[in-house]
Amino acid sequence: MSRLQRALAETAAAVADEMERLLPVADGLEARVFEGMRYAIMAGGKRLRPFLVVTSAELFNVSKESALRAAAAVEMVHTYSLVHDDLPAMDNDDLRRGKPTCHVKFGEATAILVGDALLTQAFGILADPATHSDPEVRCALVGALAAAAGATGMVGGQMMDLEAENRTLDIGAITRLQRMKTGELIAFSCEAGAILGKAQDVHRHALKAYAHDLGLAFQITDDLLDTLGSEKDLGKKVGKDAGAGKATFVSILGVARARAQALMLADQAVAHLDLFEEKADLLRDVARYVVERRK
Amino acid sequence: MSRLQRALAETAAAVADEMERLLPVADGLEARVFEGMRYAIMAGGKRLRPFLVVTSAELFNVSKESALRAAAAVEMVHTYSLVHDDLPAMDNDDLRRGKPTCHVKFGEATAILVGDALLTQAFGILADPATHSDPEVRCALVGALAAAAGATGMVGGQMMDLEAENRTLDIGAITRLQRMKTGELIAFSCEAGAILGKAQDVHRHALKAYAHDLGLAFQITDDLLDTLGSEKDLGKKVGKDAGAGKATFVSILGVARARAQALMLADQAVAHLDLFEEKADLLRDVARYVVERRK
Repeated sequence: MSRLQRALAETAAAVADEMERLLPVADGLEARVFEGMRYAIMAGGKRLRPFLVVTSAELFNVSKESALRAAAAVEMVHTYSLVHDDLPAMDNDDLRRGKPTCHVKFGEATAILVGDALLTQAFGILADPATHSDPEVRCALVGALAAAAGATGMVGGQMMDLEAENRTLDIGAITRLQRMKTGELIAFSCEAGAILGKAQDVHRHALKAYAHDLGLAFQITDDLLDTLGSEKDLGKKVGKDAGAGKATFVSILGVARARAQALMLADQAVAHLDLFEEKADLLRDVARYVVERRK
Repeated sequence: MSRLQRALAETAAAVADEMERLLPVADGLEARVFEGMRYAIMAGGKRLRPFLVVTSAELFNVSKESALRAAAAVEMVHTYSLVHDDLPAMDNDDLRRGKPTCHVKFGEATAILVGDALLTQAFGILADPATHSDPEVRCALVGALAAAAGATGMVGGQMMDLEAENRTLDIGAITRLQRMKTGELIAFSCEAGAILGKAQDVHRHALKAYAHDLGLAFQITDDLLDTLGSEKDLGKKVGKDAGAGKATFVSILGVARARAQALMLADQAVAHLDLFEEKADLLRDVARYVVERRK
């Protein structure tokens, strides 16, 4: 097991514990929505975003508790987006991380509410004094997350993605789409560490630049895996975008150029970390992992 | 036109302007989600929650700008809940405030995203320095809104409501359901004024108690209108709950006792306002209006 794999597994376990602790338990008629939230959150996944929060936070000596709470909030937002994106009216996916999707397991109505509740709780966690003693920091987190996740970020990107089904997008449009759909939340994950650590602007901007390149490299690799991977490895359907006639990085650039582009972006991401010297080695590892992963 | 009607109309116009100003304009592929947000927000309605924010804020001499921003955030959350509740998988409503619902007009996928984006933006607005100079106040708003709107509040209440279709609820269960589904956001609307004004606890608690009684009186009146009102007056379907075999205050208590209960709650709400003396007259008017309204 590599240094990165060990660190990823450690953070994944810590964040899962933190989310478990943060999710309330209910035994009234509303219990079903909590059950759905727990199911969606505990389905696993790489926990890449929480890892970026925790690892960026370590650069600025942020307390573990602060970092884990922010990481849990980001993962809740990511999970809500998957639950809603999987809905029949959206991408209509039955399988996620090798398990039935939330609406298959709990029904559509509950899945909509599960997403709504996760999104809402994420903001509640960030605003809570337990996340950071300085309320300016907490407000900055809430504001930056709202900008990254809302209509100007992730939700806007998902809207573009739905609209893309009826259009031919060029590489510029796809880049913008993916930057909004997945890039902004990845960027926030890195930025959150800097916000928690009250980092200087130059550090915060370096992390954001790293994250933007990383996010794009991540997405291009996702497109490559969707084209070349197997359903068994990925735990979800493959070839879906091509099937839906959607343009992807791979459909426009071809496999070889898409792979070269992903590698170039990973290098560029790493270059942004120079000012952190060896303290950012795990983030460098992430950039390489993101383009080399098989699922 | 009564004093209350004038004040309601004035605040409704001011809040609509504020929301219009806050909603970003986009011309990329994501423009459709902004169009849907604008459509849902501008469909009107009584704007009762924003009015409660603004009127409670006036008790503590909060600036108009702060109050209107918080009011806009609350109305965005209320609107998102309507957009999601109207979806085919939920209440499946075609008509809202006399107009096609968001998913009828824009499709289900867009309606889901419209709700997600409105909820997200609400938190972004509250966390923004323009809402209040004190970040403790902004965090308190975000935290209280998350608690009122999430799985322990509005979303939990909506979950209970869905589960109620297959059960017989007693009056205690229905009261709890409605308190979560509509009461908590109404309570937050009044509390927001107190938070913005850094009110003493005794004032904040009095407003919350007022709001809880008001919310229940509001809901019982809604049930009465659903039983007795006309679709033309209400701009939405009537008799739906009875048709779905759902227990309501009216189905359990009967029309006469439900009406008496609503009036009693309105009186009780008003009694909580004593310590504000004549400064709270508009809130007293609201309590009477809520039980006397015809739509």
